[in-house]
Amino acid sequence: MPVQQLHISAPRKGFYNITEQVKQIVREANLSEGLCTVFVQHTSASLLIQENADPAVRHDLENWISSLVPEGDPRYTHTTEGADDMPAHIRATLTATSISIPIMNGRLALGTWQGIYLWEHRHYGQSRSVVVHVGA
Amino acid sequence: MPVQQLHISAPRKGFYNITEQVKQIVREANLSEGLCTVFVQHTSASLLIQENADPAVRHDLENWISSLVPEGDPRYTHTTEGADDMPAHIRATLTATSISIPIMNGRLALGTWQGIYLWEHRHYGQSRSVVVHVGA
Amino acid sequence: MPVQQLHISAPRKGFYNITEQVKQIVREANLSEGLCTVFVQHTSASLLIQENADPAVRHDLENWISSLVPEGDPRYTHTTEGADDMPAHIRATLTATSISIPIMNGRLALGTWQGIYLWEHRHYGQSRSVVVHVGA
Repeated sequence: MPVQQLHISAPRKGFYNITEQVKQIVREANLSEGLCTVFVQHTSASLLIQENADPAVRHDLENWISSLVPEGDPRYTHTTEGADDMPAHIRATLTATSISIPIMNGRLALGTWQGIYLWEHRHYGQSRSVVVHVGA
Repeated sequence: MPVQQLHISAPRKGFYNITEQVKQIVREANLSEGLCTVFVQHTSASLLIQENADPAVRHDLENWISSLVPEGDPRYTHTTEGADDMPAHIRATLTATSISIPIMNGRLALGTWQGIYLWEHRHYGQSRSVVVHVGA
Repeated sequence: MPVQQLHISAPRKGFYNITEQVKQIVREANLSEGLCTVFVQHTSASLLIQENADPAVRHDLENWISSLVPEGDPRYTHTTEGADDMPAHIRATLTATSISIPIMNGRLALGTWQGIYLWEHRHYGQSRSVVVHVGA
């Protein structure tokens, strides 16, 4: 099946490593060469490929973007869903909704230090849906 | 035809909802599963998937990014095309030139609240060209 | 071959135009219509489609993002690899790891003013690996 849906439990703000789930879908596709596309079906969560080694990278990323896009900015008018909602939309806008990764030698062509993350931008997250397409 | 070109009238800065045009191309492709890629052929307009419900989200996004990337920053040296030109290039850099969306059950796998927008970053826009590819 | 790897010499921070290398891969694929995806295998370098005419655009982009993401921010905790390392991860997060460009009439459907750049975010770069997939 070229398209599969992943349901990711993302109960709080932060990074959820989905690399293994995506690799598993690519393995099952059994293609020597191709393209894998990851898409998140939400507007307050996004996708990120970043360093999978030192967790301090993700810690600093979260801190940095929280300063860039503060909660409670008096200019926000979309406020009915909570103080973290408009910042979540802005953070998702600045990062990725879809990422496409080539398949080479039967494997996802990620660099050594690259992991694929769902980035939850709401304080109290939920189940997030990620759709993965694999094609030749 | 796997590739089609859309001409979007974008006379002023802001968001232009192109979801229906993209869905129409996907319907005509008549694929049960596949991948749809949207690409904008410009460097001062970009693509965005964001909330299609409350227009305040887009209003706040526009306000926020206008503050982040102000016009008339004295550090800009690329100024001959107007005060909004260099900010437009920066805004396009921070957002997407291409977005890929899986096709699932014969339909674009957008989430319930996701719309596809052309984001015009110049004050006085123009006709913008968006190229859409649909493949298996 | 649908997937090819480019090795880009990126000895210092800045922009490396890879448009011709990508176009050459597309020419060799000899497809009338299709999709070309460019993917960078690193977390401190990224991809950018931006104006290929006035180099001042790229100069101003580099200046602007250097101010947005300063080196030596005391909040960074990921500091062992140098003062430019955490800023490089943030800059890569705000820009693109993958870009997909339709192929139309046998050619990459870039706009007139669009070039494809590898954006090196470290002061002392290295050889960077870019993987290019071409499919129907």
